[in-house]
Amino acid sequence: MSGQSEPRTGAVPPGGTIGMLGGGQLGRMMILAAARIGLRSHVFCPDAESPAFDVTPNGTVAAYDDEGALARFAEQVDVVTFEFENVPADTAAFLAERTRLRPGAVALATAQDRLREKEFLRDAGIAPAPFAAVANLEDLASAIHAVGLPAILKTRRFGYDGKGQVRIDEQAEAAAAFAEIGHRPAILEAFVPFQCEVSVVLARSADGTNVTYDVAENQHENHILRKSLVPAGIPVSLADHARAIGSRIATALDYVGVLAVEFFVTPDGDGMTLLVNEIAPRVHNSGHWTELACPTSQFEQHIRAVAGWPLGKGGRRFDVCMTNLLGHEADEWQRLAERPDGLLHLYGKRETRNGRKMGHFTEIVHNGLDRSPQS
Amino acid sequence: MSGQSEPRTGAVPPGGTIGMLGGGQLGRMMILAAARIGLRSHVFCPDAESPAFDVTPNGTVAAYDDEGALARFAEQVDVVTFEFENVPADTAAFLAERTRLRPGAVALATAQDRLREKEFLRDAGIAPAPFAAVANLEDLASAIHAVGLPAILKTRRFGYDGKGQVRIDEQAEAAAAFAEIGHRPAILEAFVPFQCEVSVVLARSADGTNVTYDVAENQHENHILRKSLVPAGIPVSLADHARAIGSRIATALDYVGVLAVEFFVTPDGDGMTLLVNEIAPRVHNSGHWTELACPTSQFEQHIRAVAGWPLGKGGRRFDVCMTNLLGHEADEWQRLAERPDGLLHLYGKRETRNGRKMGHFTEIVHNGLDRSPQS
Repeated sequence: MSGQSEPRTGAVPPGGTIGMLGGGQLGRMMILAAARIGLRSHVFCPDAESPAFDVTPNGTVAAYDDEGALARFAEQVDVVTFEFENVPADTAAFLAERTRLRPGAVALATAQDRLREKEFLRDAGIAPAPFAAVANLEDLASAIHAVGLPAILKTRRFGYDGKGQVRIDEQAEAAAAFAEIGHRPAILEAFVPFQCEVSVVLARSADGTNVTYDVAENQHENHILRKSLVPAGIPVSLADHARAIGSRIATALDYVGVLAVEFFVTPDGDGMTLLVNEIAPRVHNSGHWTELACPTSQFEQHIRAVAGWPLGKGGRRFDVCMTNLLGHEADEWQRLAERPDGLLHLYGKRETRNGRKMGHFTEIVHNGLDRSPQS
Repeated sequence: MSGQSEPRTGAVPPGGTIGMLGGGQLGRMMILAAARIGLRSHVFCPDAESPAFDVTPNGTVAAYDDEGALARFAEQVDVVTFEFENVPADTAAFLAERTRLRPGAVALATAQDRLREKEFLRDAGIAPAPFAAVANLEDLASAIHAVGLPAILKTRRFGYDGKGQVRIDEQAEAAAAFAEIGHRPAILEAFVPFQCEVSVVLARSADGTNVTYDVAENQHENHILRKSLVPAGIPVSLADHARAIGSRIATALDYVGVLAVEFFVTPDGDGMTLLVNEIAPRVHNSGHWTELACPTSQFEQHIRAVAGWPLGKGGRRFDVCMTNLLGHEADEWQRLAERPDGLLHLYGKRETRNGRKMGHFTEIVHNGLDRSPQS
């Protein structure tokens, strides 16, 4: 354990401890990956029922603004990372003063504020969809003028799985839409008539090495990821471009860890082009397939990066389809466990709720990926 | 959690708890596999420093004859299994009265006593190497007469990694050999001039389904497993025969869980034949390669079997070489982590000792397996 008296450089050796902010399934899967390479973990999460607490004896149940608990946590771990992007900025700053925080506070602040994220992309020369800041109804009117309709009004913070966003088709809907998101600081984004959604998951180490996984094509239902298909059904040149954009983003953020970038694939003349939709400063649902198909999964890769280990290889061995198990779909575990060439992962959540991510199932595809949305 | 009032039949569903007797690396790896399919684990082990305690919040540090602790343990879990074959018979019987114990007491009793094991094999029509029981020096003299020299004198119980055994080349060494094993009840086994050692790891479910993994060829150094190469360098017909013998043994023991059978491959005229050396009623070091190369690892397979789940597929996707990392060899973790196509597994043991199993490294072999002993 590092504590304040020890250096914050060098790799965390086997036997060291990863501090994990957040106790959801992403944290759980990273902890399982860390255990396989001999690293311990300590979970910090306010919800004692969180699934990550079930895979380590070291846990702190406390609020993210409990400085006493945070200080003790920092002393007991060698590096702190997180499994969700809405870590409060004060929490991140408090921890960064006491131990290594990876990814760092800048990446976190950029990814957790949609306005800052879009401005970062624009400044990095990576065009996102047209957008404008919205602080009040007057802003919204001029944003609609600038961006055009239809458009999506999104809160700047705390949006995920479609929460905190509403579509505006006509000027007359503007006030109601702003009320629906609670008059919170927002951005208006142009609605993009995309052909498909893809994402790239990549890792960057402290020495600047990038390892990029293959591009996944993502199918959503009710704003929740349903399936990821790999390889994506886009030209190789476009997939290479997506990976290159991912690397540029990671480098521009001086990022350490695993990062996901979601794109819209939009028509462009006879071809297609990419628009960055969102950056997730963490392992990502659209990278779960790596656990089956790659030498090093995104979970181990993130742990390697934040612990200062060499990154593993990201090459893909199989064509795969990852399907999220939502709510009672996970009750089909016996049937899924019987499927050949599949990898079943269940998160051990205590309560099944409709639409809740209870697990996922990744399967090797031998006869071509079925891209029909209903498949 | 089952407790005494609930039925002991049916599958343990996600959210249920596996009771693990023993806290070593095998238990740790089974617990990690269980977590991936949503099952909790509770470790029971007298040594608080054991590595399995680091991957679950549920642990009991108590002696194997502490009936109060065992009774509480049985109430907190849905099924009990074990990661070492020397579970005391009284412990097994005590637990079997209170909850499901898988594999059962008969398999355990058979595998933990070399004499009973050889008699079982003989009675099942599976010829082991010639052997004779030894209770005293007089027995040893007649055993030498019956079995011939050279031969190996082995304690009936508690032998592993070459402990509790001594080679006898000449009659005059008999008394010293018997003293060396502490005059304990023993068997004398004919020394087998084998060409190589192979093992088969297989799973059997409560409904009698068998899933057999490919045969591994094992290289030992100082009686400790050094490498497993898969496929083994023996004819396919002989490998099939080894798998069939494994299945017959599992069926004869009415076994539930993962079982390993070690064989000597000996010259037989122009060909080769198999002699069963040992049965291990647990996941086995020579099956660690399944974690990289098979849809379902031996660890998940054992958990599936004892939890009453459908077994997974055992088919092998790659040629592989698994190397144990003994003592300070595990200090090479950074170099190993850089190797492409490898899977590094470290056990998180607190103390490095010479010859101690600290981890293993499995690698896909693309250009043919190197079977030279020094490789």
